[in-house]
Amino acid sequence: MIELNVKSPEDSSIEGHVYKIFPNDLNSHDTVFGGVIMSIADRLALVVAERHSGNSCVTVSVDDMHFLDAAKGGDTLLFCACINRAWGSSMEIGLHVEAENSFNRDTRHILSAYFTFVALDSDNKACKVAALLPQTEEQKIRFEEAGIRRQSRLEKANKLKGLRNP
Amino acid sequence: MIELNVKSPEDSSIEGHVYKIFPNDLNSHDTVFGGVIMSIADRLALVVAERHSGNSCVTVSVDDMHFLDAAKGGDTLLFCACINRAWGSSMEIGLHVEAENSFNRDTRHILSAYFTFVALDSDNKACKVAALLPQTEEQKIRFEEAGIRRQSRLEKANKLKGLRNP
Amino acid sequence: MIELNVKSPEDSSIEGHVYKIFPNDLNSHDTVFGGVIMSIADRLALVVAERHSGNSCVTVSVDDMHFLDAAKGGDTLLFCACINRAWGSSMEIGLHVEAENSFNRDTRHILSAYFTFVALDSDNKACKVAALLPQTEEQKIRFEEAGIRRQSRLEKANKLKGLRNP
Amino acid sequence: MIELNVKSPEDSSIEGHVYKIFPNDLNSHDTVFGGVIMSIADRLALVVAERHSGNSCVTVSVDDMHFLDAAKGGDTLLFCACINRAWGSSMEIGLHVEAENSFNRDTRHILSAYFTFVALDSDNKACKVAALLPQTEEQKIRFEEAGIRRQSRLEKANKLKGLRNP
Amino acid sequence: MIELNVKSPEDSSIEGHVYKIFPNDLNSHDTVFGGVIMSIADRLALVVAERHSGNSCVTVSVDDMHFLDAAKGGDTLLFCACINRAWGSSMEIGLHVEAENSFNRDTRHILSAYFTFVALDSDNKACKVAALLPQTEEQKIRFEEAGIRRQSRLEKANKLKGLRNP
Amino acid sequence: MIELNVKSPEDSSIEGHVYKIFPNDLNSHDTVFGGVIMSIADRLALVVAERHSGNSCVTVSVDDMHFLDAAKGGDTLLFCACINRAWGSSMEIGLHVEAENSFNRDTRHILSAYFTFVALDSDNKACKVAALLPQTEEQKIRFEEAGIRRQSRLEKANKLKGLRNP
Repeated sequence: MIELNVKSPEDSSIEGHVYKIFPNDLNSHDTVFGGVIMSIADRLALVVAERHSGNSCVTVSVDDMHFLDAAKGGDTLLFCACINRAWGSSMEIGLHVEAENSFNRDTRHILSAYFTFVALDSDNKACKVAALLPQTEEQKIRFEEAGIRRQSRLEKANKLKGLRNP
Repeated sequence: MIELNVKSPEDSSIEGHVYKIFPNDLNSHDTVFGGVIMSIADRLALVVAERHSGNSCVTVSVDDMHFLDAAKGGDTLLFCACINRAWGSSMEIGLHVEAENSFNRDTRHILSAYFTFVALDSDNKACKVAALLPQTEEQKIRFEEAGIRRQSRLEKANKLKGLRNP
Repeated sequence: MIELNVKSPEDSSIEGHVYKIFPNDLNSHDTVFGGVIMSIADRLALVVAERHSGNSCVTVSVDDMHFLDAAKGGDTLLFCACINRAWGSSMEIGLHVEAENSFNRDTRHILSAYFTFVALDSDNKACKVAALLPQTEEQKIRFEEAGIRRQSRLEKANKLKGLRNP
Repeated sequence: MIELNVKSPEDSSIEGHVYKIFPNDLNSHDTVFGGVIMSIADRLALVVAERHSGNSCVTVSVDDMHFLDAAKGGDTLLFCACINRAWGSSMEIGLHVEAENSFNRDTRHILSAYFTFVALDSDNKACKVAALLPQTEEQKIRFEEAGIRRQSRLEKANKLKGLRNP
Repeated sequence: MIELNVKSPEDSSIEGHVYKIFPNDLNSHDTVFGGVIMSIADRLALVVAERHSGNSCVTVSVDDMHFLDAAKGGDTLLFCACINRAWGSSMEIGLHVEAENSFNRDTRHILSAYFTFVALDSDNKACKVAALLPQTEEQKIRFEEAGIRRQSRLEKANKLKGLRNP
Repeated sequence: MIELNVKSPEDSSIEGHVYKIFPNDLNSHDTVFGGVIMSIADRLALVVAERHSGNSCVTVSVDDMHFLDAAKGGDTLLFCACINRAWGSSMEIGLHVEAENSFNRDTRHILSAYFTFVALDSDNKACKVAALLPQTEEQKIRFEEAGIRRQSRLEKANKLKGLRNP
């Protein structure tokens, strides 16, 4: 008998993480520094990767981090993080951040980003993670999108290599 | 015609806030300082109070904060916060914190606490908040419990006053 | 001959701890977040508990934390902490915080709170602490008050238990 | 007569920024969290963008952030940041981070990343920045690479759009 | 009739400031970074200067900062700060820091330092501060010592000037 | 044959460390706290001392720290640090800090300070460091200045000792 190590995105996702903006997070335009949001996003994505893999994980790359609007003093940031796809020992974790006016619950989309983590065993070697089985229509689209991002990354790496070693 | 300003606990609650413990949060026993958890709890409770009231709010008291178990380095803290009852301009917000081992998803109950906030208008005067309508059985029990805590607070204040001014 | 392990409140108290408020401590009303003050208070209370017991200590509960007035940007916070009573392995530490205008030395009472700590031996088991001998009239009143708070806590716990298990 | 607003990469670059790793930056493997490095990198890239444009700037995207090796407790991080290319109101800033053993000056390459910033005028509208004139062979290659990354970004966006709106 | 603006050192001094060392304050030898202690010391000295002068103050110099022993993880730092002498708009504030083992109350002298602050009026111009009247024998010695340090500073400045402009 | 352990200042110096000022670094006059700058300066000076000695180092004293002008919100601080002289196991590290307006690259001199570090071997005993060979004219002047500061320190210590033990 075989125990299939397969998980769905809900098994590890984070919904409803809340960050009330501090004065120290604001630049002179009263908008939040990008680095503040990146840093929280990395730590949440890490929790998702640890939940999916059951192992310690490290960030290996970040792609398509887009800041779509500015968060301001007084806003509350809302973070969602979920795994989109897994390949061998690596996982793509998607982050979605909104800025909420907590008085009236209006929200604006602030950030999308895609983190790739690798799981490590106790000798710090990369180790296989559970397969990911997307179930909803949305999860299946995210699964495909992760493949396009990975393909684009490989093609770009080839073109860049050609430039330095023609 | 009258617009009734009534809200349910779900309208403002926070579920699934995640805090990955930092080395700086740990004492020499590798357990998390109480003050670290209090500080996060206060900030989340504030967001709940702002969502329920639609106004700026300030902490006026904290009761029955009980640390039931120690969180340790490597754990992920999970916070839930919801409003239990509202009286005039004041609101009781309950906090529930668990420590999760993110590798296997085991959790332990770490903290319960009850924060009272008051809503302020633009002149910094206390202002009326929406009534709270508990709907589930659990919400109705929490509503009653908030009343017992309030009653106990008043009785205790009387006894303490008697001691200094017999 | 017996060495009585008895201490007075002065043997462990903290008077004159000073905290100059940082911009990051302030909300949009230019008043200090409750969580900032709680976090400092917990750490000072811990030092008092360690001094009294001579052992590592952990926070087990906080009661009657009342915010009486708001501290503002520019204020200097003044903290006093002393032990009010000891029972077996547990101790009640009282905290008193004032906000000072350092230019003219005016002060306002900001916070009162009561922390309960338990002392731990090297196996992380609760261990007996020195008895507390209050000496001044004020210390004797605080000793009595700590008893009233403890009594109220037990009665309240009973009432709350009755609600869920009628 | 025309004043040409043209700058070279040296006019705004940062060489030799040093960050001594703090205990709080380390996970349980004694390696530095990715988010810590991202956050410093964003702030340095911002200074380069402000120097090149002479205006306030905001992060709009991050691409090709690759963590090549882990930095450890005791290491000193060395950051270099320079502008690779400018288009209208946007600029690509490249970041290169090494981990140094300061006792023997050994270094390892830790991170490469590419930040895109947009310059804002006093009304918070995007505004034109100085043209960038690469001068050394290395600067010319980086200029070309920035074009490949931009091209790849546009192609990928098209493919992703096709997936959701076939 | 003349109101003499004269104060004694007790009118502004800080005794008994307590700092429980955090993990983040420690280097790889488990001793506290000098910069951590300097930063707390500067902020306490500022409060003393504001209390003595009744005005905003800025640090203008620091002298004779000597680290006599290392503070370690688990220690509690104890800070005392008092004004030693005033000249026109400037004040010398002395700092004395001990490391306490809070379990047995053993202390070791860690740091001495002397900060000079200048008081500023509402136009940011230097303004006269109250005269300082030392009263105890110890205060009178400190008053003299402050004069020796000032004299030494001026002589040294002359010698250094001679070196660059012979 | 003898391997001479001699280094020049360039072998360990830091040029171009950049610190974008945070809101939390500012007092109510919108100028940076002295303690913030001291703390960064100590950490950079430590890296220089570790590079020169190849050993762990601790701060033993700070002299002639002069704040020449105030840094303000929006400024970027620029730090340079280099070793001026070595004696046995101790080293004088000079710090020079400027405040830059990054939009137009104007700079103002903010701070000079001189840190003395001692190198420690693996038993935490002071150990000999490489000799310093100044090479440029400027380096030779700094070498002489370090001697004057040391001489002045010794003379002052003697005078202060005389005051307490006449």
